[in-house]
Amino acid sequence: MTRFAFTVEFDGRPFMGWQRQAHGPSVQQTIEEAILAVTGERAVIHAAGRTDAGVHGLAMRCHADVAKDIMPFRLMEALNARMRPHPVAVLACEAVAEDWHARFSCVGRSYVYRIANRRAPLTWERGLAWRVIQPLDEVAMREAARILLGRHDFTTFRSVHCQAGSPVKTLDRLDVERDGDRIAIHAAARSFLHHQVRSMVGCLAMVGMGRWRVGDLRDALEARDRAALGLNAPPDGLYFVRADYP
Amino acid sequence: MTRFAFTVEFDGRPFMGWQRQAHGPSVQQTIEEAILAVTGERAVIHAAGRTDAGVHGLAMRCHADVAKDIMPFRLMEALNARMRPHPVAVLACEAVAEDWHARFSCVGRSYVYRIANRRAPLTWERGLAWRVIQPLDEVAMREAARILLGRHDFTTFRSVHCQAGSPVKTLDRLDVERDGDRIAIHAAARSFLHHQVRSMVGCLAMVGMGRWRVGDLRDALEARDRAALGLNAPPDGLYFVRADYP
Repeated sequence: MTRFAFTVEFDGRPFMGWQRQAHGPSVQQTIEEAILAVTGERAVIHAAGRTDAGVHGLAMRCHADVAKDIMPFRLMEALNARMRPHPVAVLACEAVAEDWHARFSCVGRSYVYRIANRRAPLTWERGLAWRVIQPLDEVAMREAARILLGRHDFTTFRSVHCQAGSPVKTLDRLDVERDGDRIAIHAAARSFLHHQVRSMVGCLAMVGMGRWRVGDLRDALEARDRAALGLNAPPDGLYFVRADYP
Repeated sequence: MTRFAFTVEFDGRPFMGWQRQAHGPSVQQTIEEAILAVTGERAVIHAAGRTDAGVHGLAMRCHADVAKDIMPFRLMEALNARMRPHPVAVLACEAVAEDWHARFSCVGRSYVYRIANRRAPLTWERGLAWRVIQPLDEVAMREAARILLGRHDFTTFRSVHCQAGSPVKTLDRLDVERDGDRIAIHAAARSFLHHQVRSMVGCLAMVGMGRWRVGDLRDALEARDRAALGLNAPPDGLYFVRADYP
């Protein structure tokens, strides 16, 4: 058995999410079926993160154990050929140590959330960004983002379906950048709760629209109550950017 | 009659091109049908450029004459509502002088061509960039681009279907920028021949791949012969960026 680590890019639009689902296509299933076709083996893929339906991946990391004697480059090429026309691509593939685990060895995860702050409907970016019609004050959003940095109980920003053992997480980065009518929000942490990035982005947008003051975000955080959430941003603008390993 | 100038963004993938065609949907038809629905008038749209099938627009300029008494903002909103779900959006709309013409008043046109220089298939960018598998030497491409700057007979870089009166054009800008595995080629001129940007990009890629030397590009230009063309880049990566007016 060789453990292969993959770096995967995918367009989340046609998928029910990363994880295998009974009721529709998933990124995991797409990769596993390609491995089956290439190797004849029913390998199980483990990933650094399990993204929701409609969320995209720029460089998701995952791994699988394969018995077939095959070079990483050949495996990558064969998987990419097999996965067509699904919008999933292996960007890199390497053989790793048996105890390397895409999920459990991961010590950092980064996301970016893209907002198109404009009135006009999206065209080529449809499903690839969140269109917010109300003018967003990115200075206020930046000030609000600082409240969320560090170690907190993020219960307010956690999906009711979240399976994490604890709602306490340490947020290392939450930067708000504007370039013309585009806003990019960069988030990084060792790990995130389910829906945490989308929930944080939704509340930052509430502040940016002027519907919330910065203090309202602090109150929402301190409430430790999902009912205090202002807004959960749609999946369209969310991209898993990077997973870090020691 | 009021002449309205529009700034239009569109995703070129589902269209046969900008111009109305008998055999399939066009951006022009999409806008003209929306104007008909909103005003009851069969207006004709004139544009700064007529892009090919699969070419995108970030800020195409066009105009139409409308008799209905309607404010520019209202017209823009109504058109955007009517054009759904087609990936065409009016970003701006203003009333202009009767003699303002989107095509004939235009004194400068800018395009960008996007290349993804990597082995892996594209996912969310499919149809939005040209994937080039061979490593491209952007320094050589930049050197080759300088040969094309200025006033030349661009017959080599002209489609056989080009209707321009003369093959002589003045190229004001042809910049090659690399950011990781992304290459963006920026082109600007008063006007371009049909297929000129794609043909120039194709030949720059020939140089970048090492299949042509810089001197081969000079020979191709001086040949003034379409048969001397190295490669015509696909429409996927081409975006009409901007039209300039006095």
